[in-house]
Amino acid sequence: MAAAAFAVAVASPARADGDAAPKPLRVVSPGQVLAVELDFTWFRQPIYRVSRFGEPVIGNSWLGFTLKDGGRLDRDMVVVGEARRSVDQTWEQPWGERRFVRDHYNELRVRLAERSGAKRQLVVVFRVFDDGVGFRYEFPDQPALKDVIIDDELTEFSVAAPSTAWWIPAGQPTDLELPIHQTPLGEVSVAHTPLTLRTRNGLHIALHEAALVDYAGMRLRRTDEQHLVADLAPSSEGWRVRRSAPFVTPWRTIQIADSAPALYRSSDLILNLNEPNRLGDVSWVKPGKFIGVWWEMHLDHWTWGTGPRHGATTANAKRYIDFAAKNGFRGVLVEGWNVGWDGDWQANGDSFDLTRATPDFDLKAVAGYARSKGVTLIGHHETVGAVSHYEDQLAAALDLYRSVGVDSVKTGYVADANQIERRDAAGVVHHEWHDGQFMARHHLKVVTEAARRHITIDSHEPIKDTGLRRTYPNWLSREGARGMEWNAWGHPVNDPDHEAELVFTRMLAGPFDFTPGIFVLDPTQPGCRVKSTLAKQLALYVVLYSPLQMAADRIENYEANPRPFQFIKDVPTDWAETVVVNGEIGDYVTIARKDRRSDNWYLGAITDEEGRLLSVPLGFLTPGRHYRAQIYRDGDAAHWKTAPLEIAIEEKEVTSADTLTLRLAAGGGVAIRFVSLPTHASQR
Amino acid sequence: MAAAAFAVAVASPARADGDAAPKPLRVVSPGQVLAVELDFTWFRQPIYRVSRFGEPVIGNSWLGFTLKDGGRLDRDMVVVGEARRSVDQTWEQPWGERRFVRDHYNELRVRLAERSGAKRQLVVVFRVFDDGVGFRYEFPDQPALKDVIIDDELTEFSVAAPSTAWWIPAGQPTDLELPIHQTPLGEVSVAHTPLTLRTRNGLHIALHEAALVDYAGMRLRRTDEQHLVADLAPSSEGWRVRRSAPFVTPWRTIQIADSAPALYRSSDLILNLNEPNRLGDVSWVKPGKFIGVWWEMHLDHWTWGTGPRHGATTANAKRYIDFAAKNGFRGVLVEGWNVGWDGDWQANGDSFDLTRATPDFDLKAVAGYARSKGVTLIGHHETVGAVSHYEDQLAAALDLYRSVGVDSVKTGYVADANQIERRDAAGVVHHEWHDGQFMARHHLKVVTEAARRHITIDSHEPIKDTGLRRTYPNWLSREGARGMEWNAWGHPVNDPDHEAELVFTRMLAGPFDFTPGIFVLDPTQPGCRVKSTLAKQLALYVVLYSPLQMAADRIENYEANPRPFQFIKDVPTDWAETVVVNGEIGDYVTIARKDRRSDNWYLGAITDEEGRLLSVPLGFLTPGRHYRAQIYRDGDAAHWKTAPLEIAIEEKEVTSADTLTLRLAAGGGVAIRFVSLPTHASQR
Repeated sequence: MAAAAFAVAVASPARADGDAAPKPLRVVSPGQVLAVELDFTWFRQPIYRVSRFGEPVIGNSWLGFTLKDGGRLDRDMVVVGEARRSVDQTWEQPWGERRFVRDHYNELRVRLAERSGAKRQLVVVFRVFDDGVGFRYEFPDQPALKDVIIDDELTEFSVAAPSTAWWIPAGQPTDLELPIHQTPLGEVSVAHTPLTLRTRNGLHIALHEAALVDYAGMRLRRTDEQHLVADLAPSSEGWRVRRSAPFVTPWRTIQIADSAPALYRSSDLILNLNEPNRLGDVSWVKPGKFIGVWWEMHLDHWTWGTGPRHGATTANAKRYIDFAAKNGFRGVLVEGWNVGWDGDWQANGDSFDLTRATPDFDLKAVAGYARSKGVTLIGHHETVGAVSHYEDQLAAALDLYRSVGVDSVKTGYVADANQIERRDAAGVVHHEWHDGQFMARHHLKVVTEAARRHITIDSHEPIKDTGLRRTYPNWLSREGARGMEWNAWGHPVNDPDHEAELVFTRMLAGPFDFTPGIFVLDPTQPGCRVKSTLAKQLALYVVLYSPLQMAADRIENYEANPRPFQFIKDVPTDWAETVVVNGEIGDYVTIARKDRRSDNWYLGAITDEEGRLLSVPLGFLTPGRHYRAQIYRDGDAAHWKTAPLEIAIEEKEVTSADTLTLRLAAGGGVAIRFVSLPTHASQR
Repeated sequence: MAAAAFAVAVASPARADGDAAPKPLRVVSPGQVLAVELDFTWFRQPIYRVSRFGEPVIGNSWLGFTLKDGGRLDRDMVVVGEARRSVDQTWEQPWGERRFVRDHYNELRVRLAERSGAKRQLVVVFRVFDDGVGFRYEFPDQPALKDVIIDDELTEFSVAAPSTAWWIPAGQPTDLELPIHQTPLGEVSVAHTPLTLRTRNGLHIALHEAALVDYAGMRLRRTDEQHLVADLAPSSEGWRVRRSAPFVTPWRTIQIADSAPALYRSSDLILNLNEPNRLGDVSWVKPGKFIGVWWEMHLDHWTWGTGPRHGATTANAKRYIDFAAKNGFRGVLVEGWNVGWDGDWQANGDSFDLTRATPDFDLKAVAGYARSKGVTLIGHHETVGAVSHYEDQLAAALDLYRSVGVDSVKTGYVADANQIERRDAAGVVHHEWHDGQFMARHHLKVVTEAARRHITIDSHEPIKDTGLRRTYPNWLSREGARGMEWNAWGHPVNDPDHEAELVFTRMLAGPFDFTPGIFVLDPTQPGCRVKSTLAKQLALYVVLYSPLQMAADRIENYEANPRPFQFIKDVPTDWAETVVVNGEIGDYVTIARKDRRSDNWYLGAITDEEGRLLSVPLGFLTPGRHYRAQIYRDGDAAHWKTAPLEIAIEEKEVTSADTLTLRLAAGGGVAIRFVSLPTHASQR
């Protein structure tokens, strides 16, 4: 159907085709902020639209599918059932940005059926919160539609207002690790989600999905000026998704807020749309900090492969374990410990043996040494994209780790975006996308297999986060964006605005294992450096949320800088509450978080290439209580380019009635620990 | 000089002309945020530049003058003197947005002299605050330059980053009352100040001036993509400014902040650059609220001129006085009370007699009646731009008011921008600009003459505000932007984003007598209406600062709506503190202000045509204290277009630890009064 005809069709959406026009079905959010209407075009295709305070945010947008051998499942439909409910509940996270999450929405469930032909049915469910909308399709059990083979999902997001977009293109080799693009919405091609928009009128919108289970990841393709349409990741089998009915699709999510801080806050919606914890008691899931045999490889001081510069030796591991024990880190990651890394390892995924250590690495001894020091070895499963090969050895590899007491594994999928290897029953290798249905299944397989063994997972080069940590709380963290490593060897390295963009783009989806804390800011590779001040590196521990946080630098660099290192030693990774104090996408952001295990608060503020003077009222602190603020700020002469290591560390006593003026240098930041003082000390 | 040559010249600013290059003189702000450098081009023209955290904000920008008969005073100059000082003092305002203002800057004073010819001297003084810069010129006493006739001030502002500008064009007939333009900086032509900019990197900048005394107002003319140059308002005499040395120019001001709220806060700089109070004891200056015989004329129910619909009758005035007395208003304005309004009054300024009332208005009786009720009649001096005629009768007109106890006068200058009538000694009439040197002198003449009689001034169609209220605290308020009246008859009327723009543009200069509080939102003129909800009308009393606030509607409309009217009765007009909680230029803004005479706080939040959901932590309240929040909010169905009168009024008890979620309808707002509860009531 031509775009022009489409435009005409939706211009008068309720025009009837001979019959009386069906009335739009409407559902509003609990606080009367958002309204969703389900309506029909003149050829009875279901469409939806979203308004906020009566003004359109998402205009008339298609719903439906194209099915292989089944044609279009999106027209000549009528409403055959309708159900509504209201939910207001609060649930507790085992770990997270905040302990208690409120789930408050009105729901409209609509059963649609074709009027003729096979009379196939499709259910659409809308959940409308005050700060966003989630909707998904359900394919009910029905005789005419058992084997559902989806060629295309037709879901559309017709953005009403001219907008600026922050996005990364989908389909490039390095994929989720591209720099974040900032362009007019009209210049978006095909984007990964979350896709973040700021409209001309100052609305902040994020489009994403929740609960991506056994389905292809949704990218967004722009069809004309303001229209985005779902573009499911392909499979190697000529379809996007294949499922047996009954099943549900992931939730399509639209977060809508008035400011960047409120947009971040609205991400609770992603968690709320996921199923509750399926793992039962997860007291074995441990957030925490770790160090690792890792950055030295990125600097090319050491190698993943064996040889004279091999990093993963028993000796190096023990040295890191000693440092971790001395400084209170829970974990030590050792990459390159297993057989497979020698030679052109990126081309030889099938040679990776995740049950066999290299001769110079005694896994059992190292793990035992760690245990004796109260430290945990963090396992590492690099797959190089040879996923079937990984699945073959998954159980054994996890068993091995479990047998030596390893309770946390970092996985890796270093491979171009569409170069995941799937071996079929006949032994033929096919190439899949990182975000296709195959990988959605694979990641959950790893997570659930790991859960059985009480092991947590930190996926690198992963599928995107869609909030499944709620259902599977052992899926602790993941990569899936440009992390610190790009500063060691990337062309380009990350710009100073990168992290202030991440908070309002990638971070909307969930935890990000960015690996901050690089103290020696000039790596040795030509042209590469960390475009940050030292104080900003500390602030990132509060700003970028991950229940697993790495202190990524060489331990020698921490030993040489004990005063700033103290903040990394102090900062927790699990929070009772999170407050985004201020922020603009890609410019600056200040986040305060309360420790889950004490009355202390932590604050991180970061900026881009502009210095900032930010006024921060401390109203988030408990009134009446006194706190010792330990402030790690940019020195007076600090500048990411000319004086990145200038840092000033000072203390002052504060209360909730105080306002701090934070001075962030260009490319800089501020990190603050607010130590709650005993009540008797406060009675001054 | 060609623009291209200029570009080359400043590209290597320190190149010497045979001699050693002069070293730039540098002065930094107290907190090391801003730095100003005074430097020289290769032909030894003084230039300055401003950086923030080491990054340029204002690039190399010219300084200097073109003098009539004296050629250019801006080249071949050397530094012959340099002085520095640091100031950190706090002073108290008799009335204002806050009681105490901190004045904290580093100053550099540089004496320049021509190397040849007459060796004329020029002093430049920079005051560098953390949130802005002020600089001015001083023409010292010197033999070669006694009679200073300025053809052009060459001061330039070379904005470093691509920016969006909020501005109004200068030189149009209605001048300061044009709608605010939002365009790329590159589309600015000639603008009035304050000119507000937001750079691509999120910096907020305002260019304006302080202490405009006996000088022409500074407009800003764009010369190329990012360059703005001072464009002094002309006089009818072929020059811009004529003064005798020694004298100082107004301060040129550059406010620089990271956010819209911080930009508003930085306006203290305007006051700080003005001279302290020259009037001594000003306890006779009374902020307060007033009503008036005014809106009925704008609605064309009543007329300014005499006749059957004359508004300014003794009877009408007494009715308004009764209402004011009953409802606690300090003042009653009566426009059209004097002889002169009959016929084509806008063309007959010389017929206005400000000492003679119309036959149906008994000034003495009305003023006495007001006094007997504890109310003050507010005087009115409309000049219709016939300023010399006004000056002729000024003393007598003020004496008359004083004799009947009137202590506050609203002045008016209804005339096209360049149609102010000045009569010279020979009786010939010349036309001057509202913002030329003649009017800068005139306004101060009125203010000082009024001060001698303990009368305060509220100037309408005024010269712009440059902070002279600090020096002359009887200059209480003024118009000088598009006020409410445009909604009665304007084409176009004010858009819903107008007030959220005003706060970050016009309001940066000082108080604005906007005249809010219209309850019946649809005036009778075809095509005209108030694009606002009722709750937003209430919020404007907190958001738009003026020590004189009018309740602008007909008293019948207040009598019919006693519950929302209660907020207008309660809200004060003088503040101990002001906190801008959030805001984006032209989108929305929330301001909290503490009453100067009680422990109560007031909050106003307004939005543009988008509804908003704003999270407002109440940390500004005194910790430990309990408050009864009286909330006036948009009803659930409110919308400026379809349901502007829907309002919900509710109460709840809050403390500084609470966070309110404010729901503003499209074109709506929220007004809150926080009543501080007695301590014993708080000990629950």
